[in-house]
Amino acid sequence: MKLIDIYARLKSDIQIIEKELEKSITSEHRLLHDASLHLLKAGGKRLRPVFVLLAGEFGHYDIDQLKYVAVPLELIHMASLVHDDVIDNADTRRGKLTVKSKWDNRIAMYTGDYIFAKALHMATELKNPLIHQILSKAMVQMSIGEMEQIRFFYNTEQRIYDYLLRIRRKTALLIAVSCQLGAIASGLGHAEMRMLYAYGYNVGMAFQIRDDVLDICGTEKELGKPPGSDIRQGNITLPVIYALQNESARSSLLDEIQKISENAKRQDIRTFIDILKETDGLQKAEELSSRYIDKAIAALDDLPKSKTKKNLIDIAYFVGNRSH
Amino acid sequence: MKLIDIYARLKSDIQIIEKELEKSITSEHRLLHDASLHLLKAGGKRLRPVFVLLAGEFGHYDIDQLKYVAVPLELIHMASLVHDDVIDNADTRRGKLTVKSKWDNRIAMYTGDYIFAKALHMATELKNPLIHQILSKAMVQMSIGEMEQIRFFYNTEQRIYDYLLRIRRKTALLIAVSCQLGAIASGLGHAEMRMLYAYGYNVGMAFQIRDDVLDICGTEKELGKPPGSDIRQGNITLPVIYALQNESARSSLLDEIQKISENAKRQDIRTFIDILKETDGLQKAEELSSRYIDKAIAALDDLPKSKTKKNLIDIAYFVGNRSH
Repeated sequence: MKLIDIYARLKSDIQIIEKELEKSITSEHRLLHDASLHLLKAGGKRLRPVFVLLAGEFGHYDIDQLKYVAVPLELIHMASLVHDDVIDNADTRRGKLTVKSKWDNRIAMYTGDYIFAKALHMATELKNPLIHQILSKAMVQMSIGEMEQIRFFYNTEQRIYDYLLRIRRKTALLIAVSCQLGAIASGLGHAEMRMLYAYGYNVGMAFQIRDDVLDICGTEKELGKPPGSDIRQGNITLPVIYALQNESARSSLLDEIQKISENAKRQDIRTFIDILKETDGLQKAEELSSRYIDKAIAALDDLPKSKTKKNLIDIAYFVGNRSH
Repeated sequence: MKLIDIYARLKSDIQIIEKELEKSITSEHRLLHDASLHLLKAGGKRLRPVFVLLAGEFGHYDIDQLKYVAVPLELIHMASLVHDDVIDNADTRRGKLTVKSKWDNRIAMYTGDYIFAKALHMATELKNPLIHQILSKAMVQMSIGEMEQIRFFYNTEQRIYDYLLRIRRKTALLIAVSCQLGAIASGLGHAEMRMLYAYGYNVGMAFQIRDDVLDICGTEKELGKPPGSDIRQGNITLPVIYALQNESARSSLLDEIQKISENAKRQDIRTFIDILKETDGLQKAEELSSRYIDKAIAALDDLPKSKTKKNLIDIAYFVGNRSH
């Protein structure tokens, strides 16, 4: 089954979630409302809600319960994207902070805060404290992950372990928690919950690695932004860490990263990407991503054979091979 | 009883809260840990925890329950201060965004996110969903209040109502919620909870109005920062709104605000403050603050006479007259 068919199968409940998302960010405050709605309308795969729904299908599926975790999870994801943009926004104005860009940044920050708070507020519709505990813990880890990313900017001495720990916090945990909360909100037992959590965690790791690979080898058209945005930001990803292990390429890569860190204009990164592509960095990253996909699928072994299980496996394969 | 005596009376439990605060922001992440701890050590009056404890004294006082609302409330307050500083930080560097200042800003933003998340996570120790609902709702309102402040920057047409709604969200609600959650966590009934909430709300309104008065008429020594920081940021406060209602002063005040908005250097605001002081703006603001104090004290009327009630009244009077 293709991804589009899975979405078609879940269509009516995804629409319910879409409406709840819109309702949740409705605010008497015009600017907040517009900023949040703009973000919402920009779309997205709604991957976290889909994982909630699919996990929920293994238990007592009730959309009126599941929506109270699906919507907060998507909101938390959205809020983290807004905060990611806060400083980048000023950056595009060549480092000059005008009053206008200053306001934009503050507005982005408070829009993020607002969406975070709305997410948690909506989750309180469910009276199970475990759910609030898991959600707030995921948010703690995500903010640590963001800080880690900043701390390791342009750090070419970082280990693969540093990278993995970072993407675990930044990306994989929230996807794991999506599966976990779908399980809890549909009354599944501890064993099934653990399996679904493990599935989500491994899919999330693979997803982020693939994302980082695509940022290097995708085209501008596929990505919707010029390739190499990670390295321009200073974010050293897995293919780069692997490539730096090649003795022949290491010193020229270090030179290029040094240049990029000093002046990250668009044309500066071409040489970097060319050198990188000649190493086995991308391939090794893809291999690790595939191993996570295998682990994700293996985590489902003891769950009953069903349409839902098949869907989760298909999504895992999609994540492993997605070209954009 | 002076404020210092109230703190002395609550000393041992304030120390417990202080330790829990420190414990709560302890992180395996060094940078986050240092940034949060620095903030914590900078001190503060811990006003929100004190209100929690005092409200709790009307019910079944249990510090092991109360600390799980007192600490989150102080953390939410701290996180909002960090986010307030995010852009100001860049500002002090004369609008030029260096790589260093960019990182500082991102770190401030994620430190705030981290502290918010830690606050909510700690509150989940209490299994009462009403508490999480009240906390997250307060956070929603606070972020709207911050946005409102930005929207009204340099807006000289704003009404007193706009100002009051803004400080209600930014300041008064969290203080009201401190009293309310202290009441809930000590098992008080709905009636007492409402009274304590009303007390906190009115004290919070008075507190913010006094703060805005002091920002204009306080000295640098008293304030720990040069006076007039509100107007330099573009924040038009109650004394200014009242002053603008004076026909004789209005046009010269508008001129000065225009100049400040274009170039908010330190010396530029002296004339503004001088003109303002000649109007009845400060006095009228003080009068409104006093009315809120009266309402705060009246809200306690039906609570039993006790040392605690006396303390709350003393705090209200202190807030009404504080000189710094």
